[in-house]
Amino acid sequence: MNNKIPTRIYLTEDEMPKFWYNLRADMKNKPDPILHPGTLKPVTADDLAPVFCRGVIEQELDDTTRLIPIPDDIQDFYRAYRPSAVIRAYYLERMLDTPAEIYYKFEGTNTSGSHKLNSAGPQGYYAKKEGLTSLTTETGAGQWGTAMAMSCGFYGLDLIVYMVKVSSEQKPYRKALMEAYGAKVVASPSNTTESGKKILADDPNTGGSLGCAISEAIETAVKTDKCRYVLGSVLNHVLLHQSIIGQETKIALDKYGVKPDIIIGCAGGGSNLGGLIAPFMGEKLSGNSNTRFIAVEPASCPSFTRGRFAYDFGDTAKTTPLIKMMTLGNGFIPSANHAGGLRYHGMNSVLSKLYKDGYLEARSEVQTDVFSAAIQFMKVEGILPAPESSHAIKAAIDEALECKKKGEKKVILFGLSGTGFFDMTAYQAYNNKTMSDQIPGDADLQRGFASIPDIPMNK
Amino acid sequence: MNNKIPTRIYLTEDEMPKFWYNLRADMKNKPDPILHPGTLKPVTADDLAPVFCRGVIEQELDDTTRLIPIPDDIQDFYRAYRPSAVIRAYYLERMLDTPAEIYYKFEGTNTSGSHKLNSAGPQGYYAKKEGLTSLTTETGAGQWGTAMAMSCGFYGLDLIVYMVKVSSEQKPYRKALMEAYGAKVVASPSNTTESGKKILADDPNTGGSLGCAISEAIETAVKTDKCRYVLGSVLNHVLLHQSIIGQETKIALDKYGVKPDIIIGCAGGGSNLGGLIAPFMGEKLSGNSNTRFIAVEPASCPSFTRGRFAYDFGDTAKTTPLIKMMTLGNGFIPSANHAGGLRYHGMNSVLSKLYKDGYLEARSEVQTDVFSAAIQFMKVEGILPAPESSHAIKAAIDEALECKKKGEKKVILFGLSGTGFFDMTAYQAYNNKTMSDQIPGDADLQRGFASIPDIPMNK
Repeated sequence: MNNKIPTRIYLTEDEMPKFWYNLRADMKNKPDPILHPGTLKPVTADDLAPVFCRGVIEQELDDTTRLIPIPDDIQDFYRAYRPSAVIRAYYLERMLDTPAEIYYKFEGTNTSGSHKLNSAGPQGYYAKKEGLTSLTTETGAGQWGTAMAMSCGFYGLDLIVYMVKVSSEQKPYRKALMEAYGAKVVASPSNTTESGKKILADDPNTGGSLGCAISEAIETAVKTDKCRYVLGSVLNHVLLHQSIIGQETKIALDKYGVKPDIIIGCAGGGSNLGGLIAPFMGEKLSGNSNTRFIAVEPASCPSFTRGRFAYDFGDTAKTTPLIKMMTLGNGFIPSANHAGGLRYHGMNSVLSKLYKDGYLEARSEVQTDVFSAAIQFMKVEGILPAPESSHAIKAAIDEALECKKKGEKKVILFGLSGTGFFDMTAYQAYNNKTMSDQIPGDADLQRGFASIPDIPMNK
Repeated sequence: MNNKIPTRIYLTEDEMPKFWYNLRADMKNKPDPILHPGTLKPVTADDLAPVFCRGVIEQELDDTTRLIPIPDDIQDFYRAYRPSAVIRAYYLERMLDTPAEIYYKFEGTNTSGSHKLNSAGPQGYYAKKEGLTSLTTETGAGQWGTAMAMSCGFYGLDLIVYMVKVSSEQKPYRKALMEAYGAKVVASPSNTTESGKKILADDPNTGGSLGCAISEAIETAVKTDKCRYVLGSVLNHVLLHQSIIGQETKIALDKYGVKPDIIIGCAGGGSNLGGLIAPFMGEKLSGNSNTRFIAVEPASCPSFTRGRFAYDFGDTAKTTPLIKMMTLGNGFIPSANHAGGLRYHGMNSVLSKLYKDGYLEARSEVQTDVFSAAIQFMKVEGILPAPESSHAIKAAIDEALECKKKGEKKVILFGLSGTGFFDMTAYQAYNNKTMSDQIPGDADLQRGFASIPDIPMNK
């Protein structure tokens, strides 16, 4: 292990990025604009103002500024838990006996347990700056809810978190953690909103979905004074904030002259993947690299690999603007899968466009294979990975074994977006062999597709 | 926040320590030798050989070599999760409005959730090197058990963990985590050992203690072929391994010319405190500093502040050698306190000696005050602290407020030894105001003291 590249690469404070990377600026073929669901015209900042903070609306609609300065206060916020390490997976390489070099960017050391704090911080900051007093949001696996609870605890804002019911049951202590930071947590669907009541009336036993929880959170935000809604994935301003991951990674690897051949990330709404790849994809779009990019999603919720590219609502109650994306339909409710953070019907529009245009590959994995990869990884690299992040581990191991087969010394980089401390029920199920793989049938998919709006742009 | 000192100070791999610091070498008044309980003579390496690995026995008995080289393989192991950051608590300072500078060394980012991996790694390494195939140990809060499970997963060794029953009930997912790394976990006292059966016969409803669990683990190790026992605290070789904490901290602070006036750590068996203070205490012992050192223990298990300085057994079944230490008596079983890692009747002999000789201060805190400090800390610094570590936070906040009162700009350093991800039941109890403070009465202490052996050295 006397390689010149250290096991953990950290940046100094001076080296830390001062700009977010807005990938859309590099795209010749931009993602289609977000549409107002009533007029079917591109949304304006005013359209979005009742729901979102002004600071993020500006970022959401900006598809031309490549580098957006990170405000000093947010740089301070980032310094409280960043930089995160880029780790050379020497032990994993040795176990796999692969000629490939494997690196991962580990975002799980902050208390939210994931990359989610990278956007929760800025969103809390803008809310506070604009004089709001409370926020609402949804959470699936619980990382985003925890991150927002941390941010609101820090900025002194009230927070209501609608937590996908199946996750709240699988992760009882997540609720306690959010509450410890001062948040109010409601299992979704709930009886506290009209959209929740409607979903419960249709299916009283539903485990919920991110789409349902989003509807409830938006409804409450719009009805409450000095309150707005914040989202932890899917939207472009979230990917913008998450580009801190890719920015740091690129600076760290550049210091050692390392150029990834393959970059892998798990994909639910796309925030972690989009953040990690941003500057690297920028190079590819300008013709300066041949890097392959791979999105990994659960077979139980395959929006890339089995979805449609269409305008769809971001939520189940059809209250959001329409986004052109890879989608299983806003009415698609995935079977219970432990990777709660990947149970979303749609996908960020930038990543969807890159996928359609051939810049981004995608694959889906069943969860037993994903947990098998997680266990292999944790025994040699030490870190307990989140089930979501373990999708990326699975693909990284497969690519490294492919290198072994072909005798190729490729450089593989993957995003280890979070830790699995609140996923021990899932690990228990895997170890006790009671975990099953739930893949939607064609009829399930058709039911989902039927909920995609029947508008001219979707013909 | 444009101070020149970064929020997080990391070392490069080149800067990382290559030696452990053996504090005993600096002590003019050495701790009294460990005694064989039968002969009452100092133990020899041969006496300890049936229980411990040879590599650690040598370290245990060496009180003259100041710097002990860290084997290359263990330096590699450390590089998988170290260096840990020294963090400047800018946000805590601002919240307290104190002129003091506050720093903390954060050991909680590895999957064990604490500093325990620093000794688990070496102990697994020596066992493997010596041809053993299995190990036994005990765990209180669960961090040590997890750390050993990680180490044994890495080195391919079998492991049985005796987990203090009250902790196993309060932390159901800890067991799952250890099992995910391949360990076998047994709630202690159990019916699987003679010492466990005896304790259960005396009190079938006992919540157990570290002392009980140690007895069970030693009994099993001695009875099993190619098996030894490993301990996560109290003994000198553990403090030696943990000196990596202090070594890194000193190098990091020296880079910025920072000299702590006060160093604070929580104390159960002493491993985290002893590791943090080692090189700093060395300076004090050689007359080169006036740093104050403060041990913080729970009021429910006050071995420093209400214990006796005497030779005592390390376990309840009286099977270990006799150690001269601050002790509540091996028969003392503390009331259920959520800081499971601090529920030990005794204290490392080096720290006990330093305390008796006036180099180390000690104070005790009730747990509701400790959780109040933890919540204050986590809202501004982000990190969810372990209840154990929060004892140090409480004292650091008190010292910083004392500086504010007196207008003194002191430099305070504390050890944040771990995270509280598996302590959410305790946080819930605090938030729901169902947590109570359980302080032993004089009669409880007398019962404990009665178990201290009646030997000439204790007269």
